[in-house]
Amino acid sequence: MIKVGIIGATGYAGGELVRLLAGHREAEIVWYGSKSYIDKKYADVYRNMFELVEDSCLDDNIEELAKRADVIFTATPQGFCASVMSQEILSQAKIIDLSADYRIKDVSVYENWYGIVHKSPQFIKEAVYGLCEVNRDAVRGARLVANPGCYTTCSILTAYPLAKEGMIDMNTLIIDAKSGTSGAGRGAKIPNLFCEVNENIKAYGVASHRHTPEIEEQLAYASGEDTVISFTPHLVPMNRGILVTEYASLKKAVTYEEVKAVYDHYYKEETFVRVLEKDVCPETKWVEGSNYVDISFKIDPRTNRVIMMGAIDNLIKGAAGQAVQNMNILFGLKESEGLKLVPVFP
Amino acid sequence: MIKVGIIGATGYAGGELVRLLAGHREAEIVWYGSKSYIDKKYADVYRNMFELVEDSCLDDNIEELAKRADVIFTATPQGFCASVMSQEILSQAKIIDLSADYRIKDVSVYENWYGIVHKSPQFIKEAVYGLCEVNRDAVRGARLVANPGCYTTCSILTAYPLAKEGMIDMNTLIIDAKSGTSGAGRGAKIPNLFCEVNENIKAYGVASHRHTPEIEEQLAYASGEDTVISFTPHLVPMNRGILVTEYASLKKAVTYEEVKAVYDHYYKEETFVRVLEKDVCPETKWVEGSNYVDISFKIDPRTNRVIMMGAIDNLIKGAAGQAVQNMNILFGLKESEGLKLVPVFP
Amino acid sequence: MIKVGIIGATGYAGGELVRLLAGHREAEIVWYGSKSYIDKKYADVYRNMFELVEDSCLDDNIEELAKRADVIFTATPQGFCASVMSQEILSQAKIIDLSADYRIKDVSVYENWYGIVHKSPQFIKEAVYGLCEVNRDAVRGARLVANPGCYTTCSILTAYPLAKEGMIDMNTLIIDAKSGTSGAGRGAKIPNLFCEVNENIKAYGVASHRHTPEIEEQLAYASGEDTVISFTPHLVPMNRGILVTEYASLKKAVTYEEVKAVYDHYYKEETFVRVLEKDVCPETKWVEGSNYVDISFKIDPRTNRVIMMGAIDNLIKGAAGQAVQNMNILFGLKESEGLKLVPVFP
Amino acid sequence: MIKVGIIGATGYAGGELVRLLAGHREAEIVWYGSKSYIDKKYADVYRNMFELVEDSCLDDNIEELAKRADVIFTATPQGFCASVMSQEILSQAKIIDLSADYRIKDVSVYENWYGIVHKSPQFIKEAVYGLCEVNRDAVRGARLVANPGCYTTCSILTAYPLAKEGMIDMNTLIIDAKSGTSGAGRGAKIPNLFCEVNENIKAYGVASHRHTPEIEEQLAYASGEDTVISFTPHLVPMNRGILVTEYASLKKAVTYEEVKAVYDHYYKEETFVRVLEKDVCPETKWVEGSNYVDISFKIDPRTNRVIMMGAIDNLIKGAAGQAVQNMNILFGLKESEGLKLVPVFP
Repeated sequence: MIKVGIIGATGYAGGELVRLLAGHREAEIVWYGSKSYIDKKYADVYRNMFELVEDSCLDDNIEELAKRADVIFTATPQGFCASVMSQEILSQAKIIDLSADYRIKDVSVYENWYGIVHKSPQFIKEAVYGLCEVNRDAVRGARLVANPGCYTTCSILTAYPLAKEGMIDMNTLIIDAKSGTSGAGRGAKIPNLFCEVNENIKAYGVASHRHTPEIEEQLAYASGEDTVISFTPHLVPMNRGILVTEYASLKKAVTYEEVKAVYDHYYKEETFVRVLEKDVCPETKWVEGSNYVDISFKIDPRTNRVIMMGAIDNLIKGAAGQAVQNMNILFGLKESEGLKLVPVFP
Repeated sequence: MIKVGIIGATGYAGGELVRLLAGHREAEIVWYGSKSYIDKKYADVYRNMFELVEDSCLDDNIEELAKRADVIFTATPQGFCASVMSQEILSQAKIIDLSADYRIKDVSVYENWYGIVHKSPQFIKEAVYGLCEVNRDAVRGARLVANPGCYTTCSILTAYPLAKEGMIDMNTLIIDAKSGTSGAGRGAKIPNLFCEVNENIKAYGVASHRHTPEIEEQLAYASGEDTVISFTPHLVPMNRGILVTEYASLKKAVTYEEVKAVYDHYYKEETFVRVLEKDVCPETKWVEGSNYVDISFKIDPRTNRVIMMGAIDNLIKGAAGQAVQNMNILFGLKESEGLKLVPVFP
Repeated sequence: MIKVGIIGATGYAGGELVRLLAGHREAEIVWYGSKSYIDKKYADVYRNMFELVEDSCLDDNIEELAKRADVIFTATPQGFCASVMSQEILSQAKIIDLSADYRIKDVSVYENWYGIVHKSPQFIKEAVYGLCEVNRDAVRGARLVANPGCYTTCSILTAYPLAKEGMIDMNTLIIDAKSGTSGAGRGAKIPNLFCEVNENIKAYGVASHRHTPEIEEQLAYASGEDTVISFTPHLVPMNRGILVTEYASLKKAVTYEEVKAVYDHYYKEETFVRVLEKDVCPETKWVEGSNYVDISFKIDPRTNRVIMMGAIDNLIKGAAGQAVQNMNILFGLKESEGLKLVPVFP
Repeated sequence: MIKVGIIGATGYAGGELVRLLAGHREAEIVWYGSKSYIDKKYADVYRNMFELVEDSCLDDNIEELAKRADVIFTATPQGFCASVMSQEILSQAKIIDLSADYRIKDVSVYENWYGIVHKSPQFIKEAVYGLCEVNRDAVRGARLVANPGCYTTCSILTAYPLAKEGMIDMNTLIIDAKSGTSGAGRGAKIPNLFCEVNENIKAYGVASHRHTPEIEEQLAYASGEDTVISFTPHLVPMNRGILVTEYASLKKAVTYEEVKAVYDHYYKEETFVRVLEKDVCPETKWVEGSNYVDISFKIDPRTNRVIMMGAIDNLIKGAAGQAVQNMNILFGLKESEGLKLVPVFP
């Protein structure tokens, strides 16, 4: 049994890790870290876990935790993981960081967009960007995995094949993203109250959202081109789910079949990516509760653009599910262990 | 492998059966029955099943199905199962009927409340009321299981221990129930449109809902007393979940600990019933996606009443989950096989 | 023009007062009080008011305010209004208190249920309970109006005619109430976050909610009998609306027509009470955005109970709308001035 | 009093017309047309209107109606209005058509996108496109007003000033739109059921939605350039509201102040358009229940694009409200009569 520690176990992503690992046959949680609820029974914080988890929450002592666990998930605010990382910890346990601390290779880009000083830039180079479908091989031997952001996972995987194959003009790429409210976390803030979110939709972080450089960096790797995009997130009155609608100019005229073949080439063998049939648009409800990414596209000859669409459950493929998938890769398990989740409908 | 046939596989309860059985290690679906979608790919009706179910929907031919399947689930409108039942079918396959056809022992009560003629009353006596926690032993040897209604499952289990122990005056029992909208089914009706349900709550079927006699009959068995109740269902703007709030006069003064001991006596060993801690009220969200019933109670000395509360996921413990639980009992499997579902939050 | 001051103008009830008074032809707001947002532009707190309200928020200085305003609405936490009240203030301006401070005549009952010491019990006797349809005449000459609670308004008006006419056994009265989330206020608390409320329903304050004694007191006046009730509020995933379902034993057998005649007797002339037609149940959506109370009932001969149902918009008839109605009465205006709001659907 | 007839009074847009006209001081409804509910009391279809509307629904007899009414609103499916229009009707009553029949000047474009033959193309030229803020003067003298679509109203007004001033490259314009579910109408269809829409978001009509040519035509008039856009609508789990997020390349570098000045130039005097302050994004909730359009923008120097955002209530400014605004213009009334609606929050 793989011994798992979670720092930040009482956020929504942390809670989802606990839920997913409860169904994982080769892992057990030995540490429920939560600075906000030290000594409180975990099941008193998340009552869905009543009679399922008997442990209480522990403080954020990563040194102690690294001795007890084989792998540590950090589902913590930006800056925390970087501030506690050390060679000693990395030599004792695998780290899967759900924050942004090691996602961006250029530390100045990180510091500019996040507005904080990176406390352990020396580990950035070694960290592997854990977008499993793209970087599976690199993840295998890693000590430190930077688990991708929710918007980024969905945004990158949706455009990746066409970027990689050079079919779209990268500087025309516009990503209009829509997220459920769990992406905003469990902090008690007025804008996240039920009455403020319900019956409402808004854009936020326009032309300034922190997931932008992460998407740009990964798609630049894929396309081999400098990539500067427009990315606009929106808050949608639902708990879970991210939908991205991406627009890009085609470099040359292509048929539906040609584009479909490209998507199939990259994703046909992927367990967790489903390229939908012609004229079927992804819906977040069809992936909710699962680790799937549903992708489709439409060619618009009037504008010479391709409109690509992707949907995920932000807490699963966009956070905890992908983190478990990375753990499975790190430990040589079947990649789908604990993740054979059938989407819940309705 | 147990061969399973489903008649009514494209309703919400049928869809949930398909989802749950996808995770069941000892059963496989051989027949996706759906009168409305004959020959249509199942995954085109429920796109969450894309790449998971390749089969197409079949017509409602129970004679043919009975030859191919070990067990048949009928998730069909009232009257259908009774109209097709025969000795021959019962001799070929186990039947788990999710409709009301065999739930009520007195056929005239059934016919009065449902307003239809029962087509095969000769099988009513043999049918076992499949409320697993109460009738487990009887289910074991049954051919025909009447799977309880969603409101009834939650209503009965919440009051059962106190009824059974004679602690409450049965004729003071009032059940005020609240259900998510999936309980109304997938039929295209104006009152179930998003805009009509959202931002709205209403009672319906006041003093006339068909689950009333089913609750009364079962609680009369439990208490050994004639039981006539008030039952009022309400439609709540959420997909899943039933919450019942039940009021009854106590026959004599009791302490919290005494009542708690009674609940624990009946449910401590039950996998799927969780008696909550003092002063914790059940919430549907804490059981959503699982087969759990969460129950708690409060004694009100001012009124000499006990207020009992219970919560379930109406499509799981209230329909498909309990049906699978009954299948597990019928076939001597572990009762929780395929049902170790951790509630999904948020 | 009546000069209006609001203390607590940035809570949900305060915001609704501002909205309603914007459409009132004989009143104008001269003071937007908000301790939390002093000096902040009101329209920056509630952006629906952009270009409609230019004022900034002011501190809670009731002495100063009493000099400037003809009427003061206090939409403040329990205890505030009692703590600042004085003869001088009452001699300068009418007070309409939306908190519970002056609703309950027996100060010890108030102090027990609210757990605070009443700071100005000398004004309780003079205060008029502002349930307009019942106490209209007393309101007319009042200096201090205790505006009823949201649950109480709906609960009392729904049962009032039958209580008044002695048709129901008051000690069998059970009120099961369901409220939208705006009733919980705009405070930043985890249980009120979108993800915690959405797709969820729960009871709270079981056998202990503070609106209980207020309902009991008023219905005791109406019925002339001691009245001890069960009252259970529930939180519903919607912004606005309260629905109450009330159960009581009938003192003698009555027909639908007899009960209907009683309701019509009390409410036929009331602008804001609509007694629905036979077999129509109230829905919160049908009153949302208006000052209406929709009421209906069903006689259940099986249990000899009457089930009464009522629906209001909790922020209007349950708070700001009734407060404006009281203001209209106090100042001799048409009672419906500023309140001719057609319910918004969908 | 202006005598108003409505054909299609029981759809959501028709219902909103009834609600708005109830508050209009110079108009009265004399005809509630509804093919689906002939002879049924209007208030039995929309129970919010109980005690407010006593009339019953009438059949779609526009000849008879034209004799009785001064103005006729047709809130009907595409093709209906064109199929019944005649010189005689136009000589008897003003027509405000909420369908698309007369919105597009090139009949072949209409017929291609809508897939139907236009039955009265002879009136297209005379029809005035009723986008009040743009075509106010032309509306004034019209007999036949083509009331704009919901998506189009919001899309056009959001981009109009920059298109008109030649600041953006029209062929880079991408409109990503999000709509509440009332936009889908009150038809009983499975995709519009609560359980299918709730907790879900999807795109639909990708690169093929019928509002596309309407937006293109109007923005081509404004910009004086051929305009071919990408337009993608999305279905959001809320009742009301449209949000558009529009992306376009700037023709030359501009400052925030320059762009703001352009917006203010066009909209400062407009009652129903609110250009928000810097860095404030529109939210549908801030305009819900009102006739407002809230607009803001952000310049992104990284991509040289401007991101424009607009929000409306789709049933008001996007349908019934704008129709009443057009009626006010047609009859020389104050443009805001009946439309001084303060947005409802929360």
